[in-house]
Amino acid sequence: MVHTETSELTGSKTFLTQEAFLQEWLGHRRLTRKVIEAFPEDKLFSFSVGGMRTFAALAMEIIRMGAPGLRGIVTRKWQTMEEVEQEYPTPPTKKDLLDLWDQTTAAIVELWPQISAERLQETDKVFGLYEGKVYWSILYFVDNEIHHRAQGFVYLRALGIEPPPFWDRY
Amino acid sequence: MVHTETSELTGSKTFLTQEAFLQEWLGHRRLTRKVIEAFPEDKLFSFSVGGMRTFAALAMEIIRMGAPGLRGIVTRKWQTMEEVEQEYPTPPTKKDLLDLWDQTTAAIVELWPQISAERLQETDKVFGLYEGKVYWSILYFVDNEIHHRAQGFVYLRALGIEPPPFWDRY
Repeated sequence: MVHTETSELTGSKTFLTQEAFLQEWLGHRRLTRKVIEAFPEDKLFSFSVGGMRTFAALAMEIIRMGAPGLRGIVTRKWQTMEEVEQEYPTPPTKKDLLDLWDQTTAAIVELWPQISAERLQETDKVFGLYEGKVYWSILYFVDNEIHHRAQGFVYLRALGIEPPPFWDRY
Repeated sequence: MVHTETSELTGSKTFLTQEAFLQEWLGHRRLTRKVIEAFPEDKLFSFSVGGMRTFAALAMEIIRMGAPGLRGIVTRKWQTMEEVEQEYPTPPTKKDLLDLWDQTTAAIVELWPQISAERLQETDKVFGLYEGKVYWSILYFVDNEIHHRAQGFVYLRALGIEPPPFWDRY
């Protein structure tokens, strides 16, 4: 099958509406929050497998991508990754990390309806670095969350802790 | 904001078309294939972290969910999980696993255009077990692939092997 890029993205049937995708994302955010909660305080900031980053560091990557990414999409002003890191330094405790998680989830909910259907199809350079269609960048944010959260599942198993079920998005 | 379920799913702007979602999925399938390839033959079938399943077992879960799931969605005839396992037993070698991967990817491509926009919004019991909207079940298949593949990334790191980059969907 040969498609032009335009017909692929606009000429075809709807798989997912913008509202349904937000609900999906919020379900994933709820599960990731449970994974953060499941870590013992010290292990969250110290434990990893195979020389990888701690789960606190992975959670911070998710935090720094989601709300700041949407803000760039809505305002068309992109912070650099360094500026995002300065705005959201890694908190010192699990409680602070969970509070930051909740604040940035609220920001996602607020920003979401400000993205137009046309904006989703535009090409932009996310954080001044990653060029692609806006809808694709948003998918990337969520896929990246699922990816790093799954690594947290392995860390928990390696610590002998049962992670929350994958389907638990409530 | 209060929404009825219907307005959320059909009354809102398109986030993703059915064709764009297939392209996303196929990109993920290409990356997962690279992760299978990155494992040394023996480790694929023997290594894990924290008492989890081997990556061959996780890849088989992905194989048994994708194409058989779509087949059920298209035909409205659901195999049980046991029947799917009998149809797709775990192959003995990496090469056989990759061949099965490619066969089931081809099945996904063939089945995909047979799913109507209306079917996506229907409620069905996937494999006779998991009830939900059809589009949501398909999202689950792909999210589950991202989730288990990410666990393979950790296994590779624990083996001292560099996994393919997460953005490599080519």
